[in-house]
Amino acid sequence: MRTPDPQLEEFRRFAGVLADAAASAIEPYFRAPLAVEDKGVGRYDPVTEADRAAERAMRALIREHFPEHGILGEEDEAVAARSPYTWVLDPIDGTRAFITGIPLWGTLIALNDGTGPILGVMNQPFTGERYEGTVTHAWRNGEPIRTRGCTSLAQARVMCTSPYLFDTPALRAAFDAVAAEAQLVRFGGDCYAYCMVASGFVDVVIEAGLKPYDTQAIIPIVDGAGGRMSTWDGESAQHGGAVIACGDPVLHARLVERLSR
Amino acid sequence: MRTPDPQLEEFRRFAGVLADAAASAIEPYFRAPLAVEDKGVGRYDPVTEADRAAERAMRALIREHFPEHGILGEEDEAVAARSPYTWVLDPIDGTRAFITGIPLWGTLIALNDGTGPILGVMNQPFTGERYEGTVTHAWRNGEPIRTRGCTSLAQARVMCTSPYLFDTPALRAAFDAVAAEAQLVRFGGDCYAYCMVASGFVDVVIEAGLKPYDTQAIIPIVDGAGGRMSTWDGESAQHGGAVIACGDPVLHARLVERLSR
Repeated sequence: MRTPDPQLEEFRRFAGVLADAAASAIEPYFRAPLAVEDKGVGRYDPVTEADRAAERAMRALIREHFPEHGILGEEDEAVAARSPYTWVLDPIDGTRAFITGIPLWGTLIALNDGTGPILGVMNQPFTGERYEGTVTHAWRNGEPIRTRGCTSLAQARVMCTSPYLFDTPALRAAFDAVAAEAQLVRFGGDCYAYCMVASGFVDVVIEAGLKPYDTQAIIPIVDGAGGRMSTWDGESAQHGGAVIACGDPVLHARLVERLSR
Repeated sequence: MRTPDPQLEEFRRFAGVLADAAASAIEPYFRAPLAVEDKGVGRYDPVTEADRAAERAMRALIREHFPEHGILGEEDEAVAARSPYTWVLDPIDGTRAFITGIPLWGTLIALNDGTGPILGVMNQPFTGERYEGTVTHAWRNGEPIRTRGCTSLAQARVMCTSPYLFDTPALRAAFDAVAAEAQLVRFGGDCYAYCMVASGFVDVVIEAGLKPYDTQAIIPIVDGAGGRMSTWDGESAQHGGAVIACGDPVLHARLVERLSR
């Protein structure tokens, strides 16, 4: 276990400021009335507008308070760091949830110190929930959260945003085999599902095709609550790809052994 | 169009009282800490406890205020009506959502006048949302809601709780063919997805294997918001089965033509 970063609490408070700014930028767009017919070039796309507005707001705050930090965001060009730190931003994770009105999307904010994410925030302003993690601790709205023990797949609740994530037959077959043995499988969840792992209501999330800004905020939350998150091969999930998060490290080890074959 | 029931507003107010009573009964159980290991005979099952407590509370209120009305509930025996009216209750629709901590479950309350449901309520206390419908009107937290126009499947947002609902190859193939042509498919939603149709954020929900208490509260909400809900054959969805709800009646007619083949 490494020594915690001496600025960790300062960075955590600042990540909360970023989350508030993103929420204010996004709020006018969630469940705003939509016309279906305005398609084609130049069409108005509320999720893209909300994404851009929120990322702009967060980038401006980072430039102001930590101008030497790097920025990796979904919407705009990467800013190289003149320090070990890079903020990894996904203003709206779960764009399909967002546009269908389902409150399971979230603003993802991570701080990477050059070795991996040391801080993560998932903010869901409609339900009023903020999940935070620092790899060793995790919180929901400031209250500590813990995963639950569940070493057996037969007793496990498994979530996954969509079976369509598994876009090769091998990935799909591996997922289906795990799903068939689980106590319960629930689809639809995006970043919210990982927070349910961290809270002890879900045991496993298995997904594929993720990007770094999908995973970096989530890793410190799941790990900080006592769980374990990695790629299917057991490597760091910070670069995205096919990932698995478990509330119980024992079940994580068992499933990685299966999935890495 | 039939004349509205003269007691409809009185019944709608009473359905709100039922929803409040169910919410109070359920609240202590949602996201209550769970032990995974206490399985076997006699195990504590919080969703069943919550279901039963909520149904008991609603049944007591119906007996007190409308003793001549019938009751059809998921948890207890049916009460025969000594009037045209039967209350159809599902205290927690979306038990998998409930136990995984996902706030897309809902309390479903319908009033059937012997021909079909004339009133429906979907209550989601965690997000603070109450959807109501009277076949000709629909509301979210008392504000009128409308579906959106979308006549083309290629522009449609389709939802479905789980692909596992389609438990025969024919049902699954029919769903997959529709899904492949849609603009977007999102899984996980339960009763909440139908309310997103009524609100104009989702265009189509296609499901199978539903029970009468899954559908009767939803029909007056979807229809009341300007949409259309039926079985895949175009018959009344009040008996459950394979159902389709669309925000746009034109798209509904097109999809029923396909699905009824």
